[in-house]
Amino acid sequence: MGDMGRVSVGIVGASGYGGVQLVRLLQDHPEVELVYLGGESSAGKTFADLYPHLAHQVDLAIEPVEPETIAARCQVVFLSLPNGLACQITPTLIEKGLMVLDLSADYRFFDLETYKNWYGIDRSDRQIAATAVYGLPELYRDRIADSQLIGCPGCYPTASLLALAPLLKQGLIVPETAIIDAKSGTSGGGRQAKTGLLLAEADNSLAAYGVARHRHIPEIEQICSDLAGHEVMVQFTPHLIPMVRGILATVYATLRDPGLVRDDLITIFRAFYRNCPWVTICASGVYPQTKWTCGSNLCYIGIEVDQRTGRVIVMSAIDNLIKGQAGQAIQCLNIMMGWEETLGLPRLAFYP
Amino acid sequence: MGDMGRVSVGIVGASGYGGVQLVRLLQDHPEVELVYLGGESSAGKTFADLYPHLAHQVDLAIEPVEPETIAARCQVVFLSLPNGLACQITPTLIEKGLMVLDLSADYRFFDLETYKNWYGIDRSDRQIAATAVYGLPELYRDRIADSQLIGCPGCYPTASLLALAPLLKQGLIVPETAIIDAKSGTSGGGRQAKTGLLLAEADNSLAAYGVARHRHIPEIEQICSDLAGHEVMVQFTPHLIPMVRGILATVYATLRDPGLVRDDLITIFRAFYRNCPWVTICASGVYPQTKWTCGSNLCYIGIEVDQRTGRVIVMSAIDNLIKGQAGQAIQCLNIMMGWEETLGLPRLAFYP
Amino acid sequence: MGDMGRVSVGIVGASGYGGVQLVRLLQDHPEVELVYLGGESSAGKTFADLYPHLAHQVDLAIEPVEPETIAARCQVVFLSLPNGLACQITPTLIEKGLMVLDLSADYRFFDLETYKNWYGIDRSDRQIAATAVYGLPELYRDRIADSQLIGCPGCYPTASLLALAPLLKQGLIVPETAIIDAKSGTSGGGRQAKTGLLLAEADNSLAAYGVARHRHIPEIEQICSDLAGHEVMVQFTPHLIPMVRGILATVYATLRDPGLVRDDLITIFRAFYRNCPWVTICASGVYPQTKWTCGSNLCYIGIEVDQRTGRVIVMSAIDNLIKGQAGQAIQCLNIMMGWEETLGLPRLAFYP
Amino acid sequence: MGDMGRVSVGIVGASGYGGVQLVRLLQDHPEVELVYLGGESSAGKTFADLYPHLAHQVDLAIEPVEPETIAARCQVVFLSLPNGLACQITPTLIEKGLMVLDLSADYRFFDLETYKNWYGIDRSDRQIAATAVYGLPELYRDRIADSQLIGCPGCYPTASLLALAPLLKQGLIVPETAIIDAKSGTSGGGRQAKTGLLLAEADNSLAAYGVARHRHIPEIEQICSDLAGHEVMVQFTPHLIPMVRGILATVYATLRDPGLVRDDLITIFRAFYRNCPWVTICASGVYPQTKWTCGSNLCYIGIEVDQRTGRVIVMSAIDNLIKGQAGQAIQCLNIMMGWEETLGLPRLAFYP
Repeated sequence: MGDMGRVSVGIVGASGYGGVQLVRLLQDHPEVELVYLGGESSAGKTFADLYPHLAHQVDLAIEPVEPETIAARCQVVFLSLPNGLACQITPTLIEKGLMVLDLSADYRFFDLETYKNWYGIDRSDRQIAATAVYGLPELYRDRIADSQLIGCPGCYPTASLLALAPLLKQGLIVPETAIIDAKSGTSGGGRQAKTGLLLAEADNSLAAYGVARHRHIPEIEQICSDLAGHEVMVQFTPHLIPMVRGILATVYATLRDPGLVRDDLITIFRAFYRNCPWVTICASGVYPQTKWTCGSNLCYIGIEVDQRTGRVIVMSAIDNLIKGQAGQAIQCLNIMMGWEETLGLPRLAFYP
Repeated sequence: MGDMGRVSVGIVGASGYGGVQLVRLLQDHPEVELVYLGGESSAGKTFADLYPHLAHQVDLAIEPVEPETIAARCQVVFLSLPNGLACQITPTLIEKGLMVLDLSADYRFFDLETYKNWYGIDRSDRQIAATAVYGLPELYRDRIADSQLIGCPGCYPTASLLALAPLLKQGLIVPETAIIDAKSGTSGGGRQAKTGLLLAEADNSLAAYGVARHRHIPEIEQICSDLAGHEVMVQFTPHLIPMVRGILATVYATLRDPGLVRDDLITIFRAFYRNCPWVTICASGVYPQTKWTCGSNLCYIGIEVDQRTGRVIVMSAIDNLIKGQAGQAIQCLNIMMGWEETLGLPRLAFYP
Repeated sequence: MGDMGRVSVGIVGASGYGGVQLVRLLQDHPEVELVYLGGESSAGKTFADLYPHLAHQVDLAIEPVEPETIAARCQVVFLSLPNGLACQITPTLIEKGLMVLDLSADYRFFDLETYKNWYGIDRSDRQIAATAVYGLPELYRDRIADSQLIGCPGCYPTASLLALAPLLKQGLIVPETAIIDAKSGTSGGGRQAKTGLLLAEADNSLAAYGVARHRHIPEIEQICSDLAGHEVMVQFTPHLIPMVRGILATVYATLRDPGLVRDDLITIFRAFYRNCPWVTICASGVYPQTKWTCGSNLCYIGIEVDQRTGRVIVMSAIDNLIKGQAGQAIQCLNIMMGWEETLGLPRLAFYP
Repeated sequence: MGDMGRVSVGIVGASGYGGVQLVRLLQDHPEVELVYLGGESSAGKTFADLYPHLAHQVDLAIEPVEPETIAARCQVVFLSLPNGLACQITPTLIEKGLMVLDLSADYRFFDLETYKNWYGIDRSDRQIAATAVYGLPELYRDRIADSQLIGCPGCYPTASLLALAPLLKQGLIVPETAIIDAKSGTSGGGRQAKTGLLLAEADNSLAAYGVARHRHIPEIEQICSDLAGHEVMVQFTPHLIPMVRGILATVYATLRDPGLVRDDLITIFRAFYRNCPWVTICASGVYPQTKWTCGSNLCYIGIEVDQRTGRVIVMSAIDNLIKGQAGQAIQCLNIMMGWEETLGLPRLAFYP
């Protein structure tokens, strides 16, 4: 257990960008102590072998992933693994009493059939999976507070759902008209070497990918359906942008009431997110830039209404590695532990 | 007049990115000779003062803009000026018998009322304006061939209309469902120093702008209406992308016939653009990257159908300064002169 | 005065990148309260007008620059103004008992003749200027602790001097062989709109500037001379790099003792910077990347010896806006106030 | 053999960036016909599988590398292979009468001992290797004209040697004071996926690599020695820059005659390169930007003298994939064939 009464925390899968952000943010968190880093391919290396610039800041080694060891050393564990691995060790960790925050897709789905259809993996941990809560605090704060197992949202779903939630929850739009055109920096593709993510290929270029079949679609639709109270289908198109960090989701939907104007919706969104310290609704006529979020856990939302076409356009910007991944997981931990939701999380963007 | 029987060409407004691209492309065009560069604020400077790297390649000076002088020296003139200036000198140039290709918005509109509503400029050259042809060769080739005055399309309209044209012309979509989510490199904002276009501001960032009010909206709608045969209203949202060149337009629309599949549409698009050497329809499952177009006059179009939602998604990529501006103007000139449509224009992208 | 016993701090010239970094870092500093922002051209605006993303974080307005007002409200003031302005208000501020940390060149020089020769400004505040201390804590920590007026170093001199100091102080190199080839991101050029700093111009390009005449030359030579104990002249060439933040100085010099090897120098550098929490000497064979520093106040130094040529090559990386500007000024303040030198300053880079 | 009397050309190793540039440039060359593409790992694929955007422009497949086949189909072959492979097939190709232009290091060295020391490969083709000419036309034009086998220079040596040649040839500098601080875009690292070349890692970062041990050092020193007429040792440090294309070499050296001023050197350089259509000496006070070269075969050289330190600073900018690789090889071919040295090569940069 951690010294000075701090909570002992471990990270499994610390070598990727999600991992290094968790390490960075948890180092500065006043109530936790990072005591364990685990990994498969990188086991035996020090964390500084992977990230030399952290040699003088983090002196942990990467250890093999053994649930028993983790359980003996940690009260809380973050899992940052490829899909299909978290579900293999989580049952043991939960049984041993740990709090588990999983950053993969394994515990995001209410229904494991959907998971199987989109991820191609059959699962036997149905009972445990049924106890998982979707870790988007702005929508499921109370359930997160009472949970031991969190399925942290994907980066695209975070940006998309924060843009859509007030509209769907209050029945302001025709759900089947919702189109999400999302744009992400390349760090969302992880640290593994792929030709398409090389600077020489990705810089000064731009393209869509996974059109009509990206795995974040069922995740977004699941939560949209929960918000609307009935099955909702959305159009979602991700794009790769020549930048390191940041997601912008541009969301289009037809308003049910063509009389609503921009300022009405700003008022509605502000009320909806009144108790949400990490969501900021832009002033009238202001649209968010992803750079405003880089390095912080904030989501900026800008709203426009096109009265000619009767559509609302919502733009939602986050740092994909913070609010879209590591920061949001820590936000969930804060809620689970009963701490301030903002504890230890960066509020001010790195700008420029 | 040019030597060796070449056509004498001038450029008014040569100092901007449109101008420097015209200079570059026209230098390599086998049938023209560049004999005149004009500008207001830069008059008296040499072109090399503005672009030192062209000092040894282009030895023209920037001259004051006097229609009489231009008419005495040029057979063809490209106007690359801020909106509202071309219409002041074009009547004289046309009267003197010159061919005029205007890159501003001045001669793009069938109806000067629309121009006035969106650009705030009242015009007295209605008679001349009525003779202008919209310079998108893939749609108006025959009329361009017979015209003396071309209103060259904007960069966003070029990418957007090439994506929408076959769908609208053949009644395949419900027009009012069309949403264009467009993304552009910052060279589209020109060479004038603006804080928002500084590398320190625009790099590693991403934002929408001009939502529901960008001036390319009426231009796109005018041509969509012409294609559909009735008034069409579209949703258009431009975004600033941290790269120098390239536009990607991601276009969404609901298909009238939900039975159409991707390959049907690819066949339809290929037939529609059969005689268009500058439009390439991607193979099934391939989506275009803007880098594929950089430095060439090509437009790449990728097509996807989402059978769950009944929508077609068309992705259209161009180099905003070539097919979106200078290259397209030269393509129009080639048609006006009866030359090969591909003459003197770059076919192979600069990649990577 | 600040509440809760915090020190009241003001910033004059808050609108630029130095200013916004100071605002960001001071907001998170546990012992200070930011109570005043001043500016000339931006007076009357709120800080959020300049940086909309800080609207919900910083609610100060920009006030006119009146030394009397500043003195009445602040105990400490940071001046982030163009050269030649700080020296106009500093005498009053010092007289009123404030601690002044100036980020311009005004108080960097031991000899105002040098300042006049390179900056073309004649000065009348010689008596005050003589009390200023050069704010590079790694070299002048004790004098900073006793001073009321700090002339904070330029970004290039910070990176260059930290690379050269152990070599010069210990007479390890032939001083006149020192060549500094420095590379900086474009944020070093400030937030003012200049054509050469546009993304479309500066991205995917690279060039030297100010060769043999950059104003940081006399600043570097002054401190090098102080370290060596005799007049030293260096070669310094800055380059503009297509990135937002970061400086790398690659320093070449001929070793007096050709028998010295890399590990000797690493040992010497580590000893020299033993008590310097913000300087990290890389392990043998490791060269620093500027990305390792982005967002932190750290300077990473890598060392190589070329035994074929007898030269040492030292590579020094900093975040130009933090250790090269705002962070270093706060580091000086910490020392002046007797606080921990690391207090309130970011330690972990933003990476990636 | 090619139709219309064109020369039949093949490329072995067409899948990398050198290959794709050769393909692009040779397609537009009026005197050659590209008839063969060869590769090992990519054999059996079409070129369009590797570069989908060229599907409609290049319809060649990648064939296995069999010297007999190549010899039967081609008159000229470019080899763009990893080091140590060209030397295995070149003897057969030469024997069959082909002209061979090798882009690897295999045929760059006068002395195969040097090659062995730096590349760790023992060679048995000494006789053939002795007939190879170093393919830097500005220095070895006459020998290239008479050769059947060209060892094309590396990208860094091209930029470095063009900066140093007039100085060394005319004894203007103290050779051992020469320091080359070189900066390259990431395309120089090739198209293979490596973590360090990912956009997320390399963008917004900057670092030196291979300090005092990069394999281009012996290549540069060999030619410098040839120019000086005696053994010359240089300092060479490459840096990775967050951009796709371009190299800038900043070269420092002490002048023998301290009375020489900038304009003297400009005159000397202009005279030295008088008959070199691909080298441009910048006007007094102008320093080259790599963007000026992107897409062209030009090398821009800027010159400064620091009269305080007695050093000359020469800045040399090229497009690493054109003048630094594919373009220069074609320039050599033009000379070998007795064509204009500029034939088929791009002259105007892509700018911006």
